[in-house]
Amino acid sequence: MARIKVGVLGATGMVGQRIIQLLEGHPWFEVSEVAASERSAGRPYAEVMQGRWKVQGDIPPRVAQLIVKECNPNLECRLCFSALDSSVAGPVEEDFAQAGYVVSSNSKNHRMDPDVPLLIPEVNADHLDIIPQQRDRWGSDGYIITNPNCAAIGLVMALAPLHKRFGVDKVVVTTLQALSGAGYPGVPSLDVIDNVVPFIGGEEPKVESEPLKILGALDGGKFTSADLTISASCTRVHVVDGHLESVSIGLNHKASLDDLIAAWEEFDPLSGQELPSAPSPPLIYRREDDRPQPRRDRDEGKGMACVVGRLRKCSIHDYKFFVLSHNTIRGAAGAAILNAEFLYKKNLLWL
Amino acid sequence: MARIKVGVLGATGMVGQRIIQLLEGHPWFEVSEVAASERSAGRPYAEVMQGRWKVQGDIPPRVAQLIVKECNPNLECRLCFSALDSSVAGPVEEDFAQAGYVVSSNSKNHRMDPDVPLLIPEVNADHLDIIPQQRDRWGSDGYIITNPNCAAIGLVMALAPLHKRFGVDKVVVTTLQALSGAGYPGVPSLDVIDNVVPFIGGEEPKVESEPLKILGALDGGKFTSADLTISASCTRVHVVDGHLESVSIGLNHKASLDDLIAAWEEFDPLSGQELPSAPSPPLIYRREDDRPQPRRDRDEGKGMACVVGRLRKCSIHDYKFFVLSHNTIRGAAGAAILNAEFLYKKNLLWL
Amino acid sequence: MARIKVGVLGATGMVGQRIIQLLEGHPWFEVSEVAASERSAGRPYAEVMQGRWKVQGDIPPRVAQLIVKECNPNLECRLCFSALDSSVAGPVEEDFAQAGYVVSSNSKNHRMDPDVPLLIPEVNADHLDIIPQQRDRWGSDGYIITNPNCAAIGLVMALAPLHKRFGVDKVVVTTLQALSGAGYPGVPSLDVIDNVVPFIGGEEPKVESEPLKILGALDGGKFTSADLTISASCTRVHVVDGHLESVSIGLNHKASLDDLIAAWEEFDPLSGQELPSAPSPPLIYRREDDRPQPRRDRDEGKGMACVVGRLRKCSIHDYKFFVLSHNTIRGAAGAAILNAEFLYKKNLLWL
Amino acid sequence: MARIKVGVLGATGMVGQRIIQLLEGHPWFEVSEVAASERSAGRPYAEVMQGRWKVQGDIPPRVAQLIVKECNPNLECRLCFSALDSSVAGPVEEDFAQAGYVVSSNSKNHRMDPDVPLLIPEVNADHLDIIPQQRDRWGSDGYIITNPNCAAIGLVMALAPLHKRFGVDKVVVTTLQALSGAGYPGVPSLDVIDNVVPFIGGEEPKVESEPLKILGALDGGKFTSADLTISASCTRVHVVDGHLESVSIGLNHKASLDDLIAAWEEFDPLSGQELPSAPSPPLIYRREDDRPQPRRDRDEGKGMACVVGRLRKCSIHDYKFFVLSHNTIRGAAGAAILNAEFLYKKNLLWL
Repeated sequence: MARIKVGVLGATGMVGQRIIQLLEGHPWFEVSEVAASERSAGRPYAEVMQGRWKVQGDIPPRVAQLIVKECNPNLECRLCFSALDSSVAGPVEEDFAQAGYVVSSNSKNHRMDPDVPLLIPEVNADHLDIIPQQRDRWGSDGYIITNPNCAAIGLVMALAPLHKRFGVDKVVVTTLQALSGAGYPGVPSLDVIDNVVPFIGGEEPKVESEPLKILGALDGGKFTSADLTISASCTRVHVVDGHLESVSIGLNHKASLDDLIAAWEEFDPLSGQELPSAPSPPLIYRREDDRPQPRRDRDEGKGMACVVGRLRKCSIHDYKFFVLSHNTIRGAAGAAILNAEFLYKKNLLWL
Repeated sequence: MARIKVGVLGATGMVGQRIIQLLEGHPWFEVSEVAASERSAGRPYAEVMQGRWKVQGDIPPRVAQLIVKECNPNLECRLCFSALDSSVAGPVEEDFAQAGYVVSSNSKNHRMDPDVPLLIPEVNADHLDIIPQQRDRWGSDGYIITNPNCAAIGLVMALAPLHKRFGVDKVVVTTLQALSGAGYPGVPSLDVIDNVVPFIGGEEPKVESEPLKILGALDGGKFTSADLTISASCTRVHVVDGHLESVSIGLNHKASLDDLIAAWEEFDPLSGQELPSAPSPPLIYRREDDRPQPRRDRDEGKGMACVVGRLRKCSIHDYKFFVLSHNTIRGAAGAAILNAEFLYKKNLLWL
Repeated sequence: MARIKVGVLGATGMVGQRIIQLLEGHPWFEVSEVAASERSAGRPYAEVMQGRWKVQGDIPPRVAQLIVKECNPNLECRLCFSALDSSVAGPVEEDFAQAGYVVSSNSKNHRMDPDVPLLIPEVNADHLDIIPQQRDRWGSDGYIITNPNCAAIGLVMALAPLHKRFGVDKVVVTTLQALSGAGYPGVPSLDVIDNVVPFIGGEEPKVESEPLKILGALDGGKFTSADLTISASCTRVHVVDGHLESVSIGLNHKASLDDLIAAWEEFDPLSGQELPSAPSPPLIYRREDDRPQPRRDRDEGKGMACVVGRLRKCSIHDYKFFVLSHNTIRGAAGAAILNAEFLYKKNLLWL
Repeated sequence: MARIKVGVLGATGMVGQRIIQLLEGHPWFEVSEVAASERSAGRPYAEVMQGRWKVQGDIPPRVAQLIVKECNPNLECRLCFSALDSSVAGPVEEDFAQAGYVVSSNSKNHRMDPDVPLLIPEVNADHLDIIPQQRDRWGSDGYIITNPNCAAIGLVMALAPLHKRFGVDKVVVTTLQALSGAGYPGVPSLDVIDNVVPFIGGEEPKVESEPLKILGALDGGKFTSADLTISASCTRVHVVDGHLESVSIGLNHKASLDDLIAAWEEFDPLSGQELPSAPSPPLIYRREDDRPQPRRDRDEGKGMACVVGRLRKCSIHDYKFFVLSHNTIRGAAGAAILNAEFLYKKNLLWL
């Protein structure tokens, strides 16, 4: 079977690199187009990336020789991954959708649009039903889907099974986020050695709002926000990959510690669908005292599983726990790929 | 004026070293006795400490030549600082109190005793009125005072001015604690490089309970717990010194952002008392987006001031902020010294 | 084909863990015995390792349930890997050899014995001819082979192809060694954060002497030292895995930069032998300005390849370069396994 | 006594900040002018530095309110410190010298000029005799003096006393350099966490050439290079401040270990001159096994002393040792200030 040709918009950045790395050897998709800014266009990808390829391993040879193109909707593919910087992603992704492309975007620009799914296949697959509305907007077969912010996704993964069974009411979360989340060059070393930075620009509003859309319903053609409140405090710590979050939650219905753990351990909605990037299970609960830890747990499920631990009573809300997710895989590149795999499985790539 | 001779119990550990370092050149106190385990006793301090002195600078020469003694109450001094490990501190401190010594202890063992002050001079100076009860217990002029856990003290310093003015009701706190808090050798490097450990044994209960005693009243000869609830999650991060805490609070009375900042900035109860180790002011509010930071702010007030920042509305409780304190100075050695200075000023060293 | 049963002596330490991890799924060997100190013996490996398993991933399930035995030569296997601490390895390994076991040891104790091969299969395969002498010593079919010190092996790998073609005369090397080399708990975090320790006990003599045996000849039944001099300075840096070495060499014969690179790139003595752990090629020369780097290059060849870079003229000796090797894989566990694979291929496991 | 007004060129960069910090409270000099690029000019220094002040503590209040000027030679002062980036320092410093200013520069541009002293007051004070030649060049009373590269200065400080007594012949050095040497933002955190970068652009030639000028003679109005050869390998490690160097040296004359240590410990050429920034002694030899260490030793002599340790025989050259110096104090800002203090003492500021 011939693999489906895909393009990568913003192919030179950290997330673009991760997408290319993760798609190497992918059973369904094949990177046939790499697009970036005008400055990079016209030269082979390997040449453009000299000194800029920062993910583990070398550039896949086939991609290395691709000529970088500009981000115009004349790429030879139907599906594009967008890893564009948010300063440019907005109109570029619209152009592609209008031109009939399916765009699986990691950028924040269209996440909260009323006709764009903010998708985690395990959580809100039904949100894809909004797509026809979006196709009306563009007057084409194209559309945009998005994946959540890297700190929001781990939180939602941990909350989703609890919310479904017991109703989550309140969430107070402090994140300890990894450096790769800031891209490259990103955070200067002098800012994080022997230090923590208790601020990440624009992050807290995303962590507080995106989960409400994802956990909300699509009702009568409209997204309604989930009925819960989140308060987030975001910090940057001295870790390469892996966002750790300290979470305190209030529940609507009584539930025991074992009930919560069972909800997590039984959560596997994609089981049996054989999506190449779907981890099974997507949530792992560790019983040790001192887990999850970024370096030791971030690679679970090839970086696509989330790891939960230290569930215990909270004296103010109901429970406290920690959740960890790999921010550039489950929280960015891998999420965009899993979303596209899900579209393919649902026959939404070839309308 | 002759300086007051003081002893250091547990002089070889990290906190003991810090006490010796901070007392070098102290205007009132002079280290004349260093005591440790039987294994170290009988040899000069410098010899015992070969390869074990881990704080900045060299051992003060006068202390270097002191012969280490065992922790028996036959030291030539009236005041002792206890930096003993909690596995031995309990009975040793009792022996000293019984023998008539004043013990300023950093150990957890007696902190919650009903007749032992858990003292922060800026916050609960009146708790010293319990001392006569304690002297009854020992049948001597001796007594024990204690300073709080290193993560509790920064939290209490930030809460105290707010609690007094507006009543603090609820506190959800996640700590990002420094490595020096675990002593030496303490945390193995392989556990914290490119990592966070979301667990510190025994820490969360201390952070949840000690502030209630400190912020509570001494009423009719009994300590009553402050009427607030704390929920703590404690983590160990890749920082040498300086505990950072992400705090969300509920208040009993309405207060604006400016009210809270004013409460912090006007807080300086020890002003004018000229205690050598009292920082003035003890609380600093920084207005930058991204402060406090451990490496950049921990040395404020020679490590005795606490730094608060990022005050903002909380969508679940009332406000959120970050607070930082130097864990081995304000959170341990410096706290014990400040407590002793306060006793001296209050004429409680020479009853 | 049934896999060969092997034992791991010192199975609870860091190197023992790595051996178990690397042997999971090994096509030839299967861990059937785990042995450690008396204190650990008699309980399932998983139970003994609670809180002590420090390598990535979980304990392989089959090993997890093995009952830990003492290090006595009554294990049901013919081949043992020794990851014993050097304080006990000496006599234990002798007992096993005497009892007829083949011991592939990572410990330093017998490395310099006149009848024990200090083996790197790519470099001195002929040294195995000494084994009959050793079997005379033990009066059994058993024998010991050893792999080099973790800092020596990368150096020898880089020197071997040059020494063969051009004769290496002088080596001045400064190592920047990773923390995993010190085991667990190993180096306290307070010693290496924002710091370098310019000393590793006993390391410099090993780096200066072991390569001379490895690069030397086995002549008339005796090892003769290679005719070169090494001067080493060893430091511990803030890196999890991967020893980096700054090397300056003098050569006996003229050679150009390209000659040296060719010597490295053409070096692949095990090619075609299909040893499961042999990397192909074993040496990689990177042409970028700023490589090799520990985090980015240590996993080449699954941690078994060495990476060389920055070859340039030296104004005092002839050339300078950097070499990197994964210290717990190529420098310890992987080396012991590769040695055993080589023995198997040479029919030296079943004499 | 009124303090001498001085200007800081390049006042916004890391070295400029350090100069301002170190001059706070200086007994002789007072910062009265801060100059930077056109972009910053015209606004108060505090405003320009919002979010960019990266050294410990706050901006000295008096400097905070100075209006930043452009780097034109119309500043109201006679002495200027130049912390300009090397991309612009060349002509700017020339303009100032021509206009009659004395420029104490940390930039590399004029270091190797035949009429510019590359000065370490403890080492080559006589090189100042070249100044009249330079004044001829500019046709003014102005002139430029420079301090060495941050990695060269520690090396020269360690070599100078040995070279004088025993003649140093050969030097092989590997540096482990701190991150602050790259300025701010400088090295991205993703490049140095759990990593070492074995390359610093342009550094090795400087370390190999500058010491030859400094240790050389000024003879008949010409600088002659010292008769020794240096081979340098430079790496960037995970340290905030403090360059550590692993050094192997050959000597012209026989000398014992004790002879070398005596040469270092007796070295104090500025003794009695009472220069505010001159450390006494400038060289400290530590006898512990594992020193010098960056975090523990960099602040010796307020960052102006160099610390040497681990002197031992070298099997290839004569001796090996480690030397540490604080790269932004002794290796940059502090060096420029000490040089200016020395000019003042020698009556070279007021010709």
